[in-house]
Amino acid sequence: VSEVVEERTVFRSPWLSVSERVVVDNGRRTAWHYLEHPGCALVLPITASGEVALIRAWRAPVARWCWEAPAGRIDAGEAPLDAARRELREEIGGVGGEWHELGSVYASSGSSNERIHVFTALNVQLGPSAPNPDEKLELALVPWPEAVDMAEKGEINDGASALAVLWTLVRGLGG
Amino acid sequence: VSEVVEERTVFRSPWLSVSERVVVDNGRRTAWHYLEHPGCALVLPITASGEVALIRAWRAPVARWCWEAPAGRIDAGEAPLDAARRELREEIGGVGGEWHELGSVYASSGSSNERIHVFTALNVQLGPSAPNPDEKLELALVPWPEAVDMAEKGEINDGASALAVLWTLVRGLGG
Repeated sequence: VSEVVEERTVFRSPWLSVSERVVVDNGRRTAWHYLEHPGCALVLPITASGEVALIRAWRAPVARWCWEAPAGRIDAGEAPLDAARRELREEIGGVGGEWHELGSVYASSGSSNERIHVFTALNVQLGPSAPNPDEKLELALVPWPEAVDMAEKGEINDGASALAVLWTLVRGLGG
Repeated sequence: VSEVVEERTVFRSPWLSVSERVVVDNGRRTAWHYLEHPGCALVLPITASGEVALIRAWRAPVARWCWEAPAGRIDAGEAPLDAARRELREEIGGVGGEWHELGSVYASSGSSNERIHVFTALNVQLGPSAPNPDEKLELALVPWPEAVDMAEKGEINDGASALAVLWTLVRGLGG
């Protein structure tokens, strides 16, 4: 049995924190550093006319444009579903819809505690958006079969967004 | 056009580094902190008898057991395919196989530059392994239909591993 015996923050900034965790397993002590993350909520929004509302986002850590679904950090005390609804509204002005929880996955369980909660929302209505001014985002409406093709080919280069498309596909929710 | 104008390391430890990147976009300066990651190579190994060689790994950052495919960090100068072959051998003693590159995705493009290169390898042979002593890993041979079921239901809780199963499925490589 592994047990966490010590935990402390070793780096903190307005953007992220690094934690150190000391684990004991059969008397063996091991220290780990990892990114402390509040968790993320992601939604694959599909309109009544069968278009997927994807985002083109310029991401500073990778210094390039990424294809993603609307997503963002979960606020303190916020439920994942509420965070997903808020991000959908803020990033692309999406409201309403028939929501399905698809599951949750870890983004990179060796170096971060980030858990991504994934939803799909059908019959979403799009309106005015209010994105964070520090974020560079562009909305792209993509017909469902094309979104599936992009996810299958790896063109949707955010892992959780590609998974959201394929989860929606295999559960028969998209078509 | 966004441009990276400054970059420096703001935290460094044996396990991970945090970089600061200053980006200028239309005269607006924004600073970002992100996890500096060398990239990851992941392989979904399938044996000649149609079993998927998955791993149960205890991950300190999330303090729980995760279902994953063999994967690990890419060494300096190492090609992703070579890293995937090395990790397969080290973690579960897997050799040989017919390899397919499935694609690459970012793990969390807002907080890390980690890119995960995903492969599948068919007809893999399993032998003695030599895992890192700091890693707690258990091999689990799962029949292909059951692995698909686990990925569809979200039981494979590592995002890139679940994506690897679904990519293998939709490309008709698994069955």
